[in-house]
Amino acid sequence: MSAFGTHGRGHLDGPVVVLGTGLLGASIGLGLRGRGVPVFLFDPSPTNQAVAVDIGAGRPLSELDEVPQLVVVAAPPDVTADVVQKALGDYPSAVVVDIASVKATILAQLRERGVDLSRYVGTHPMAGREKSGPVAARGELFTSMPWVVCPSEETSAAAVQVARSLAGDLGAIVSQFTADEHDEAVALVSHLPQIMSSLLASRLQGTPLHALSLAGNGLRDTTRIAASDPTLWVQILGGNADKVVSILHGVREDLNRLIGTLEAPSAPGARLDLAQLISEGNAGQARIPGKHGGPPQAYSWLTILVDDKPGQIARLLTEIGEIGVNLEDLRLDHSSGQNVGMVELSVLPSKHDLLVEALTDRGWRVLQ
Amino acid sequence: MSAFGTHGRGHLDGPVVVLGTGLLGASIGLGLRGRGVPVFLFDPSPTNQAVAVDIGAGRPLSELDEVPQLVVVAAPPDVTADVVQKALGDYPSAVVVDIASVKATILAQLRERGVDLSRYVGTHPMAGREKSGPVAARGELFTSMPWVVCPSEETSAAAVQVARSLAGDLGAIVSQFTADEHDEAVALVSHLPQIMSSLLASRLQGTPLHALSLAGNGLRDTTRIAASDPTLWVQILGGNADKVVSILHGVREDLNRLIGTLEAPSAPGARLDLAQLISEGNAGQARIPGKHGGPPQAYSWLTILVDDKPGQIARLLTEIGEIGVNLEDLRLDHSSGQNVGMVELSVLPSKHDLLVEALTDRGWRVLQ
Repeated sequence: MSAFGTHGRGHLDGPVVVLGTGLLGASIGLGLRGRGVPVFLFDPSPTNQAVAVDIGAGRPLSELDEVPQLVVVAAPPDVTADVVQKALGDYPSAVVVDIASVKATILAQLRERGVDLSRYVGTHPMAGREKSGPVAARGELFTSMPWVVCPSEETSAAAVQVARSLAGDLGAIVSQFTADEHDEAVALVSHLPQIMSSLLASRLQGTPLHALSLAGNGLRDTTRIAASDPTLWVQILGGNADKVVSILHGVREDLNRLIGTLEAPSAPGARLDLAQLISEGNAGQARIPGKHGGPPQAYSWLTILVDDKPGQIARLLTEIGEIGVNLEDLRLDHSSGQNVGMVELSVLPSKHDLLVEALTDRGWRVLQ
Repeated sequence: MSAFGTHGRGHLDGPVVVLGTGLLGASIGLGLRGRGVPVFLFDPSPTNQAVAVDIGAGRPLSELDEVPQLVVVAAPPDVTADVVQKALGDYPSAVVVDIASVKATILAQLRERGVDLSRYVGTHPMAGREKSGPVAARGELFTSMPWVVCPSEETSAAAVQVARSLAGDLGAIVSQFTADEHDEAVALVSHLPQIMSSLLASRLQGTPLHALSLAGNGLRDTTRIAASDPTLWVQILGGNADKVVSILHGVREDLNRLIGTLEAPSAPGARLDLAQLISEGNAGQARIPGKHGGPPQAYSWLTILVDDKPGQIARLLTEIGEIGVNLEDLRLDHSSGQNVGMVELSVLPSKHDLLVEALTDRGWRVLQ
């Protein structure tokens, strides 16, 4: 690797071999082909492989006649260690990366087998779609998404550089963690939210529908990811069980404390206990980074009532552009039963009053 | 009540007395004044009352010289029963409603005291703001939001009608529950999400910030309401402790089962247990009603990459309007560290492919 970009990373020259042409493997192929990198594909399912070739994600592996620079293992988590081990043997000068979403187990499996880890780099592109398979592949799937690179102590610097180039070439935001750090981080920022959302949504199974008619954004936001795919999550949670369980012990402690408090709500200290639960949530929530990876920032929200018909929101946003205020976030909120929508906007606090006034002057119904 | 609107409900004539001029009381005053209803205000804090009068939410109660049609008790939950009882005595022909967010406790307190309940109606407007106090009041606060009316068995039909008119005149979507049904419903759709979000966010308190840099929309959505006000939630959870606790027992059972499974992730049946947790979450999530109170509907989502600068989103929405497709929902997604934004749109499934094609033709980068 000699050519370095402005971010101090090189670009891949290829050829790149992609083993496994599901959604992620085929998307990697497509993205690299879009940059002119030669890609060769293999999938145990001839159909999957043929689809991936047909959509332009690469050529069949059987046509490879050069020494590959990089092998990307995009197999299911349970067989990833096997495929990595085989690839290190089959391509004795290539860097081999995998893209499974849990890292420490795979590294431990490879260590147990005495595999030379100098050319292996575990990675985790944090991107996905609701659909799966090569048909759903998109070369831009990784654009602006985190891609964690997890070298072991034995991994060579050159191999790390190739793994970082893969992620960088595909437009991802590259960060580097140890496998353990990665698994701990995703246990908290990804696996725990999934579990809490599923536990919460599960309680809705027996509810009368008229009760659900009172559902607002709070319930919708907290249960959105409860719609996730069970098959995928069995593998993820099973592969990171240790780290997830140790966080869940903490949750259980808090839950037990809360149940105790609510079983005797007039006991001395009960109000303080409840206040503490909510305050601790405040403190944790405030630590989540803001837009563009900056420090957490409090934005000011305002709500505008609009008629629920096409063009209204576009007109609103056009006028906000004319006023010259940049939106930080935007959400639509439709209440049940009436054809009025609410657009919630967040802006820098310093712009809030200006925007409220300007929109009100233009005849919009601004709530806050 | 003789004049009925098209929805079979009357309008208030007033005068209306509002006891308590915090955010909700003052907003009720403002909204009714906007409809020309005479409103008279009282607050134990002379400052609060003066502010509410100044913003036009009504006149001081001392100026009331007619028999009021309706008294709205907008006091803190802990003193609501006291204020309701006093109001029923002070205004012996008026309907008295309260607006506290938990209903059964207040009703039980009034019953214990032997209060005649024929003129009392418990209600719960499900609206609020991040700010509090009369300065934050808005006459349109209740527009399109649910407002639950909870008559007791003793409440007269005429009193129920007045309570429904209050909610309807303020633009809310009125529904009718018993106090118990209401408290059970909000325990599930409002109090449980708050608790789960707080328990989740609480775990983030000790996390290294580099781990939080991997946070995505899943974590942001599930923790948004964890930023809520502790003082308010102490009263809400304390006032609905029984119903919340019985739901939390179910959560604890599921959590214990999950912890057991993850402590022995290779045990037979472990994968099935994990799949069941996620599947039950799928089933519960799918029951949440869709837009406009219709049945849950699966919308198709697509993601468009846009430059993160003013005017881009407005231009996109304008073009979607030209294409003639109605948006069901819209979300902005900013990933850390790069100035590319993603706009996620949901549309009716039948419009998905058309929209993807039309936007791609116009040069937008469409991901799905």
